Amino acid sequence: MRVTVSRKAHFNAAHRLYRKDWSHEKNDAIFGKCNNPNFHGHNYELIVSVTGEIDPETGYVIDMKVLKDLIKSEIEDAFDHKNFNLEVPEFAELNPTAENIVVVIYDKLRSKIKTEMDLEITLFETPRNFVTYSG
Amino acid sequence: MRVTVSRKAHFNAAHRLYRKDWSHEKNDAIFGKCNNPNFHGHNYELIVSVTGEIDPETGYVIDMKVLKDLIKSEIEDAFDHKNFNLEVPEFAELNPTAENIVVVIYDKLRSKIKTEMDLEITLFETPRNFVTYSG
Amino acid sequence: MRVTVSRKAHFNAAHRLYRKDWSHEKNDAIFGKCNNPNFHGHNYELIVSVTGEIDPETGYVIDMKVLKDLIKSEIEDAFDHKNFNLEVPEFAELNPTAENIVVVIYDKLRSKIKTEMDLEITLFETPRNFVTYSG
Amino acid sequence: MRVTVSRKAHFNAAHRLYRKDWSHEKNDAIFGKCNNPNFHGHNYELIVSVTGEIDPETGYVIDMKVLKDLIKSEIEDAFDHKNFNLEVPEFAELNPTAENIVVVIYDKLRSKIKTEMDLEITLFETPRNFVTYSG
Amino acid sequence: MRVTVSRKAHFNAAHRLYRKDWSHEKNDAIFGKCNNPNFHGHNYELIVSVTGEIDPETGYVIDMKVLKDLIKSEIEDAFDHKNFNLEVPEFAELNPTAENIVVVIYDKLRSKIKTEMDLEITLFETPRNFVTYSG
Amino acid sequence: MRVTVSRKAHFNAAHRLYRKDWSHEKNDAIFGKCNNPNFHGHNYELIVSVTGEIDPETGYVIDMKVLKDLIKSEIEDAFDHKNFNLEVPEFAELNPTAENIVVVIYDKLRSKIKTEMDLEITLFETPRNFVTYSG
Repeated sequence: MRVTVSRKAHFNAAHRLYRKDWSHEKNDAIFGKCNNPNFHGHNYELIVSVTGEIDPETGYVIDMKVLKDLIKSEIEDAFDHKNFNLEVPEFAELNPTAENIVVVIYDKLRSKIKTEMDLEITLFETPRNFVTYSG
Repeated sequence: MRVTVSRKAHFNAAHRLYRKDWSHEKNDAIFGKCNNPNFHGHNYELIVSVTGEIDPETGYVIDMKVLKDLIKSEIEDAFDHKNFNLEVPEFAELNPTAENIVVVIYDKLRSKIKTEMDLEITLFETPRNFVTYSG
Repeated sequence: MRVTVSRKAHFNAAHRLYRKDWSHEKNDAIFGKCNNPNFHGHNYELIVSVTGEIDPETGYVIDMKVLKDLIKSEIEDAFDHKNFNLEVPEFAELNPTAENIVVVIYDKLRSKIKTEMDLEITLFETPRNFVTYSG
Repeated sequence: MRVTVSRKAHFNAAHRLYRKDWSHEKNDAIFGKCNNPNFHGHNYELIVSVTGEIDPETGYVIDMKVLKDLIKSEIEDAFDHKNFNLEVPEFAELNPTAENIVVVIYDKLRSKIKTEMDLEITLFETPRNFVTYSG
Repeated sequence: MRVTVSRKAHFNAAHRLYRKDWSHEKNDAIFGKCNNPNFHGHNYELIVSVTGEIDPETGYVIDMKVLKDLIKSEIEDAFDHKNFNLEVPEFAELNPTAENIVVVIYDKLRSKIKTEMDLEITLFETPRNFVTYSG
Repeated sequence: MRVTVSRKAHFNAAHRLYRKDWSHEKNDAIFGKCNNPNFHGHNYELIVSVTGEIDPETGYVIDMKVLKDLIKSEIEDAFDHKNFNLEVPEFAELNPTAENIVVVIYDKLRSKIKTEMDLEITLFETPRNFVTYSG
């Protein structure tokens, strides 16, 4: 009886999409307004989904409070009110697209969740754009 | 051409998370505020998803009205405005965590849906916490 | 330049609608399923709106963090995971309808907000039912 | 590292559910109010999900702007403010149920998305009814 | 202590925006795609808000179940799955814009609500367009 | 018969809350994480509400398409994917709090809307924080 438990969280941040090794013209052609050198930002809505067996003792797959605290310490404290390009080490050389951010979030949480549990991350960059990654 | 048809429904109920065979201290340590002996409650939002072939005659996988009525008779009438611990027989000896509730809902509906169709249940306990089970 | 600043918050609780001085039959006739003696519950979504002049120094009407903390200490800590009838003193002799709850919330917050500011409270009892009070 | 990129879109349209080769009585028995000969309509909310490898150059699976424009030219321009039964060629002989519409949307987009990418379409007919198809 | 009690409801319908006494060209110029002679449609989301004194006996301004049933009998039964232009008598000679629909809803409900209560109607034509009328 | 017509729109931007004439310590004490010198950002959700008489000819208070285009040209084109502090002239010397932004939006639109119409602006900075201004 494997059940998926999901928890929503929230952070907001600034970013710029570009490659340092490309000309400004090429960055503009590929990333358009997202290449603004002065940055823009988003309210990121995050869903962390953990799949595993129900513990017959507690009736929990994972304690939602534990999951909430894990998201806070690993993701919100690291990303909230930050500039992805300038302040989040994982993006020093990585373009902070939604796709790359969702993979980084997965990698940060994967080692904190028991290996017999599956993990899936969904990240809304805007109410109309979102990405999903499950390893 | 297997298509998934999903229907949202709603009920609200009271519950308390605890085990009768544990001390109050242990229940408090594991379940925290959810162990309130006077109960607390939720608006549960339910999504029932049925996957099957489109009937070439009707263009339906399953008639949404039939699915809506089934959810009402099997789930809403049984759970709405009830106390899970005291009034819902399935939870007489089972802790009414979201995980256990979603499995009970699945089991109640599984026998009412044709076996060649897949069934998945998603249950929101709060707008930020939800669980999913597909057998 | 009076601007309204609104903050959303959340708590969940159990309640029962009834009057002790009425017969069970009369309570059933008036309150229906809400008169369940074993209680039922809701996820209450709360919007607290404060209207005042923008402080020209800060650009704030009221610091959202101050408002968030005030809602937590006055409302969430008092109501979350509680049974309104049994555990919240304001409802010892007052029927915990959405209307009465929203007035109690207003009264609890009114004395904590500067008198030159207006206050309005909106309380969702379910996603489809909500009430609003502004004194 | 396969990531799913999803984009939400919107169109509204009129339709009627019925089969020309059935009697009005049979259509009424099967399709109920949806068989209104004068039509009724919906705000359709659409989610198009594309799964593929992250391009290491750009950090994109697919440029959201490209995906947005593709949905506009292929789906919104063809369906928005239209009558499915009378004006959309795919439904000249096909009952415009949500199930059939989601398959038509999939087929229209499938040939425009690289074959190494997976495609999934979710279509909300109302806020409470939705369908999903992935080929 | 005047409190506002609000109830959300839903119906879907087809309509066409045009004036019979205008040329097709003029209708197209003013109403654009909404002048499609084959109709288009919407999921209309409705909020009915009633403001009055809390009844000290019940703690209700108005029983939500009474309000829900009133919306069903007066509005949903009259409009749901209908064609506004062809089947709803109020629009035989009145253009079914959101503005005109919200006024018709107000007028239909006003006579059913006690005169000492205020009434306000909000109608969403799409998730991004809505109108409000309070007499 | 004055009806309010509302249109939702969206933009995202970066900002930093601080005063140039205050020390970094004072800015940190008042604005906390929002004083990050590298900026952070939001998805701003905007509601523009115009109140006026229904034009008996068209049934419109204001053509939603006209309103949508006005919001695009005046607000979205000026603010979307921008840095409020560095790129939006109105905030060269004005702290871009939600309160100040909503007043600037009001002022930019007020002169474009007929004087006999009322205008109200609601701006969501996050899903939980929003502000409203009506002149």
